[in-house]
Amino acid sequence: MKERDGLIIVNTGNGKGKTTAALGLGMRAWGQGYKVLVLQFIKGNWKYGELQAAERMGADFVIRQMGEGFVRNVKGDALVDHKDAAEDALCNARIEMMSGKWDMIILDEINYAIKFGLVSVEAVLELLEAKPQSQHLVLTGRDARQEIIDKADLVTEMREIKHPYKKGIQAQKGIEF
Amino acid sequence: MKERDGLIIVNTGNGKGKTTAALGLGMRAWGQGYKVLVLQFIKGNWKYGELQAAERMGADFVIRQMGEGFVRNVKGDALVDHKDAAEDALCNARIEMMSGKWDMIILDEINYAIKFGLVSVEAVLELLEAKPQSQHLVLTGRDARQEIIDKADLVTEMREIKHPYKKGIQAQKGIEF
Repeated sequence: MKERDGLIIVNTGNGKGKTTAALGLGMRAWGQGYKVLVLQFIKGNWKYGELQAAERMGADFVIRQMGEGFVRNVKGDALVDHKDAAEDALCNARIEMMSGKWDMIILDEINYAIKFGLVSVEAVLELLEAKPQSQHLVLTGRDARQEIIDKADLVTEMREIKHPYKKGIQAQKGIEF
Repeated sequence: MKERDGLIIVNTGNGKGKTTAALGLGMRAWGQGYKVLVLQFIKGNWKYGELQAAERMGADFVIRQMGEGFVRNVKGDALVDHKDAAEDALCNARIEMMSGKWDMIILDEINYAIKFGLVSVEAVLELLEAKPQSQHLVLTGRDARQEIIDKADLVTEMREIKHPYKKGIQAQKGIEF
């Protein structure tokens, strides 16, 4: 890792650009020769396009799928599995943060994991406290908690103004996945 | 180019993620094996990080710097130069669109070029009309005109919620450039 002050960046809101902008940040950092790790708190959110791109970009841009899928209607034992997976992702984030290997870590959909009670906001705040000084952390997901926003340096809300599905257009290869 | 319906995507708003999310879209498309061209209407907006990333990504991800710099206080002959450069960029966009070489073309800061009168909104609307069916077009820049939004399939507004420069933190290598 290089010497500098790393930022805590949050991409939130109901629009499409949250994960996409995190990808762009990762690409820009990778272009600078930085090492970038994406930890995915919600399985299935990262699609073929970005997984293939990471593959082509080599060992300095790594995407790791950690959590389970979206949980809107999950209950009982299945919810316990989701929580276990999210807790594992959080531990993994801490280990990787402390390893000194990564210049930027993207915690994708961690806001979602907080919102649905898969991880506590306190645990995530502790993680932010433990951030090595020079490391950049990017947190994505809608409905970012105010406590997270308070800790962040740069917060952007992506607002959906117009969405093609509402016009009856199907998901597009290379755009959505 | 592959067979499908391409989208017109607009990233606008006062926040940081507009160009960054376009980069992410480009990376995802490139991961799918698509060919991506970035045409930059405002010189200097794309920095070392992304230029280096494109370099590392090879011939299927190309960034071309076309326009002059930002024009806020430019007047007289210098403004004529800026307009000439923006018109050149627009012609270049049309030629590349029609060439059939690219699956995605990113017209970076074209909204800005319209806002400052470097190109007319009518000329850009004509460009959108001429889009090959399967090609994705991404337009970035704040203050997107309503006529452009009306033509678009997917529009996202990036809103700045919190910005580090306001806290006195300097621009960060790998994040801002």
